[in-house]
Amino acid sequence: MKAFQDYYPDELAHCYGCGRLNERGLHIRTFWEGDESVTRFTPALHHTAVPGFVGGGILASLIDCHGTGTAAAAAYRAEGRAMDTPPMHRFVTASLRVDYLKPTPMGVELVVRGRVKETRGRKVVVEETVAAKGEVTVRGEVVAVEIPETMRLRTQS
Amino acid sequence: MKAFQDYYPDELAHCYGCGRLNERGLHIRTFWEGDESVTRFTPALHHTAVPGFVGGGILASLIDCHGTGTAAAAAYRAEGRAMDTPPMHRFVTASLRVDYLKPTPMGVELVVRGRVKETRGRKVVVEETVAAKGEVTVRGEVVAVEIPETMRLRTQS
Repeated sequence: MKAFQDYYPDELAHCYGCGRLNERGLHIRTFWEGDESVTRFTPALHHTAVPGFVGGGILASLIDCHGTGTAAAAAYRAEGRAMDTPPMHRFVTASLRVDYLKPTPMGVELVVRGRVKETRGRKVVVEETVAAKGEVTVRGEVVAVEIPETMRLRTQS
Repeated sequence: MKAFQDYYPDELAHCYGCGRLNERGLHIRTFWEGDESVTRFTPALHHTAVPGFVGGGILASLIDCHGTGTAAAAAYRAEGRAMDTPPMHRFVTASLRVDYLKPTPMGVELVVRGRVKETRGRKVVVEETVAAKGEVTVRGEVVAVEIPETMRLRTQS
């Protein structure tokens, strides 16, 4: 099954968190499960914070790219279109909020769940949780915006 | 000159963002410049968002670890102690807020600047900026807390 990120065009598929063409990235892959978007990701050893726990920046990366992916998928869904039909939706992050409720353990699959909280014009607000062994350890919120022309122009040069 | 992170004990020096013993991490290094803490970091190619710009998760990692490092250094400074004197201060992130004001270009050194906004018991709030070519592209805020016993116990086992 294709993930949201599999529909990103090649020239926009190099992101550290979610780019399938980034050789050293996290390669997160996100899918709908009903009204929720879901990413499953097992951190590597070098994603550590202190030994035994996942680093805050890596968790922020998951929240970030899960949020922009969800925003894009939701934009297509709102228009009743498949993600491989033009015009393209691709979002970047305007702001990110992450609350680390408790330490997130290493060595297990993390489940990121997202839900669209609000849509305002070109902005989509996505609220998210990260769970380890069924327990929510992190809450996050992303304000995603359609990729600005200044970033798209660069990628077309 | 030793950076804040050079004083972290070996068992707490594996963090993805700031651990000097993490072979695949960012290895950020932070210093005082007066009342400001400063980290200089040049992203690698795989830290991309879309081509030409730095990924949001990497910027969040910088904000995160710059914040916890600043909190630790500020705690020693408030006690008039050097960072190599016991007892140890080591902070983790309770919450993180990042505002991406404009795209952050790749290929240049980024300068992260932090300032302690508030100290409340075991909590230190650090406000930060990231600048590229002298222009602030990101604002961030970290609420850092002294590392909880649950995380320290694991590292001592």
